[in-house]
Amino acid sequence: MIVSDSTSLPLPRGAGRPIDQQTLDDLRRIVGGQHVLTTDGDVEPYSRDATPLFRARPGVVVLPASTGEVSAVLRMASERGIPVTPRGAGSNLAAATIPEHGGIVLVLTRMTTIKEISPDELLAVVEAGVTTAELADSAAALGLLYAPDPGSRTVSTVAGNVAMCAGGLRGLKYGVTRNYVLGLEVVLPTGEVIRTGGRLWKDVAGYDLTRLLTGSEGTLGVITEVTVALLPMPAVARTGVAYFGSLADAGRAVAGVIHDGLVPATLEFLDNRCINAVEDFAKLGLDRDAGALLLFGDDGTAESVERSLSLMAATCERTGARGVTMAKDIAESEALLTARRCSLPALARLAPVTMLEDATVPRPRLAEMVDRIDAIAARHNVVVATFGHAGDGNLHPTIVFDPADGDVRHRAEAAFGEVFDTAIEMGGTITGEHGVGAAKRPYLQRRLGADQMALLRRLKAAFDPAGILNPGKLGS
Amino acid sequence: MIVSDSTSLPLPRGAGRPIDQQTLDDLRRIVGGQHVLTTDGDVEPYSRDATPLFRARPGVVVLPASTGEVSAVLRMASERGIPVTPRGAGSNLAAATIPEHGGIVLVLTRMTTIKEISPDELLAVVEAGVTTAELADSAAALGLLYAPDPGSRTVSTVAGNVAMCAGGLRGLKYGVTRNYVLGLEVVLPTGEVIRTGGRLWKDVAGYDLTRLLTGSEGTLGVITEVTVALLPMPAVARTGVAYFGSLADAGRAVAGVIHDGLVPATLEFLDNRCINAVEDFAKLGLDRDAGALLLFGDDGTAESVERSLSLMAATCERTGARGVTMAKDIAESEALLTARRCSLPALARLAPVTMLEDATVPRPRLAEMVDRIDAIAARHNVVVATFGHAGDGNLHPTIVFDPADGDVRHRAEAAFGEVFDTAIEMGGTITGEHGVGAAKRPYLQRRLGADQMALLRRLKAAFDPAGILNPGKLGS
Repeated sequence: MIVSDSTSLPLPRGAGRPIDQQTLDDLRRIVGGQHVLTTDGDVEPYSRDATPLFRARPGVVVLPASTGEVSAVLRMASERGIPVTPRGAGSNLAAATIPEHGGIVLVLTRMTTIKEISPDELLAVVEAGVTTAELADSAAALGLLYAPDPGSRTVSTVAGNVAMCAGGLRGLKYGVTRNYVLGLEVVLPTGEVIRTGGRLWKDVAGYDLTRLLTGSEGTLGVITEVTVALLPMPAVARTGVAYFGSLADAGRAVAGVIHDGLVPATLEFLDNRCINAVEDFAKLGLDRDAGALLLFGDDGTAESVERSLSLMAATCERTGARGVTMAKDIAESEALLTARRCSLPALARLAPVTMLEDATVPRPRLAEMVDRIDAIAARHNVVVATFGHAGDGNLHPTIVFDPADGDVRHRAEAAFGEVFDTAIEMGGTITGEHGVGAAKRPYLQRRLGADQMALLRRLKAAFDPAGILNPGKLGS
Repeated sequence: MIVSDSTSLPLPRGAGRPIDQQTLDDLRRIVGGQHVLTTDGDVEPYSRDATPLFRARPGVVVLPASTGEVSAVLRMASERGIPVTPRGAGSNLAAATIPEHGGIVLVLTRMTTIKEISPDELLAVVEAGVTTAELADSAAALGLLYAPDPGSRTVSTVAGNVAMCAGGLRGLKYGVTRNYVLGLEVVLPTGEVIRTGGRLWKDVAGYDLTRLLTGSEGTLGVITEVTVALLPMPAVARTGVAYFGSLADAGRAVAGVIHDGLVPATLEFLDNRCINAVEDFAKLGLDRDAGALLLFGDDGTAESVERSLSLMAATCERTGARGVTMAKDIAESEALLTARRCSLPALARLAPVTMLEDATVPRPRLAEMVDRIDAIAARHNVVVATFGHAGDGNLHPTIVFDPADGDVRHRAEAAFGEVFDTAIEMGGTITGEHGVGAAKRPYLQRRLGADQMALLRRLKAAFDPAGILNPGKLGS
């Protein structure tokens, strides 16, 4: 699904063309022959990411082992006008790593060194391809918390998280990836290696390229090394669950929690269809009749967690919860979090195609938004289930369908178009944490307006004069 | 002190020229005659900011009342190539608002409406010229905390804080202004009005212009409205003070605090010369013989603050404090914070000129850095006193001198040049929170390198093709 736009940047001259023999030879010289993939079978896994329905064959897949190799590849690609799509694990849900115009897919998963974890400086320095879980586990072994925890954490790479500004289940209290990136080593599309930021929480020397690159979806530079901030590991983390007759009641509970002056680590919700899908999948003993499930959790000292959880449980009861259960130990807490974490795989079992979105609205309007999503889905005759981050107003409406069912895909796309328009109208956005990629490109201008879109294109050109990096995506 | 750089952007064609009559007439038509200042007496206050030794006369001072007026002024200035220096209260310490090339100083202090404070959404929307203290006080009246608290808070404007990415005394736990900006209304140099971000903590639609503009020092756009995140007001805040024989001992205490898993709100230090200057000034009963004073504080629930303060006091004693005192109540806490807050005015009394810097190093190297600063000052025969944010590694070495004293200004500048080189060598930066402006422009390339400097210039040109906005500063 390539959407053309008359005002978009021109594509690089090599777009859509096969890779010539000279370039293949040069790539093999740079990264070694076994790290240049060209056969249909070898490149197939890199023709797609975790986004359904998007697919494009790369001309060649290149797996560099060092910043120097990345630089040499990019310099050559800029000179020859060859598209380059950088990629970590390819776990993004926005079709941000689909090589729509062919060329090189540049895979960073061989760069897997954890260079440093400093308990004194509360930071870690890792190469691009280290997975989020590996970083988090290595930090935890030293008593430190890497706060961002996207659902893809076991496979996603740290640099991929930075490129997409990944979120997760702890956003309300801890923020997202952006809040933890201190410094980056980045290769510009023209091959220069720059270092942005560094090891400091406070550093205002120059424009904030660290944050500009965070969430730039591989369109401005290739991130080869990341310095992230860590926190002391909280002594205790605990979770509870509340069932409500309706999402409106759950929304009142969330408002009550904020009103009590709490900013807890976790406030997640599932609607009735999600509850049932998860229960079918994982048999956790959830209340299948509830209109909504609210997962609440916090971490900190034992006393502060006790106080926070008690207050949240009381608020849920006051706002009409059908039942409130507190996890008795870590195992029970983990089981409850599993209910939330397995929402997507559980829904994916319902039909061959699962389209997951992440429209976001101001927190107080979450329940209203879910009602409007349900009405939109009914109007377009598609099956929708919604879960997400109630504390952030970040919803994951998920449409499941069988593509054999006539024009269902178009109905689903039309429904999501209305969902995005509704989110914008309510003061929200088309994507809270998944990114724009190719999947949400058609909706970006509705959110940003023509003047900001034009500015994005000028910024893109300032980084990437040949337009080789992830062409057609953000900033194009 | 205008430093030329052969690779810098060309100046706009009206740089250094008087404002023509037609332009004055047009400006009066846009903002009203009484808001266009031209006489020597009227423009004098806008020829300088809080940075000593920097001064330049604006051609005209313009005080718009609305975003529409800002847009009309900028569109005209871009068309005619007239420099525009945006300015809030002018409390910055980096000579970032000195109109070095004349033209228009655009003062946002008439835009003072607090448009909204939402306890439900934990955010505020304010016009550019609202002061930081006004925002904080209005939020506090509703039980909410606006966390950034720069030293200039009673006079500085919120948009000025955003433009400079101001820090403050709570950086370790709460971060800096950047961490609280959710959305901006910005007028581009060519007059278009864009809105970046919005009301959401999670929003990844497009490049992160909100953060790019934060800290861009009025060189990319004029901020007319700011949406900031608020937090629930902590129930309790408390402060203690510890005296040490040396800064090295105080540094060990800071390391111990982090090692205990604490990230407290406040960890500030004063060296011996600062202690004595403050004591002379404010008569607080400080220990004049101590090598270093460490102010430690935290906020939260009563129990968590009690625990945090007790742990910090014990750590100070364990690392050799000569004395530890805990504030008994809010009044005593405020008195202790005053000791830190009045460091700059106290030092300013020592000599006619006070040059305050904010080199920053990784936290564990703070004491080493202060020693090296003292050695540099001795070598250049200048008087230095250092205070700052121990938790952030953010130092404020301050050189005081009488300009009548021969070549002392050059000795001071030479000393600071070495201080910046030393900070960079130690993994730090030339500015943690004050910004680059004209004052630190000569040192920026040492920190960023030529490739990143060139990229900054391309970004600047993408926003400001005519080069009118704060010409010669960041990105030029």
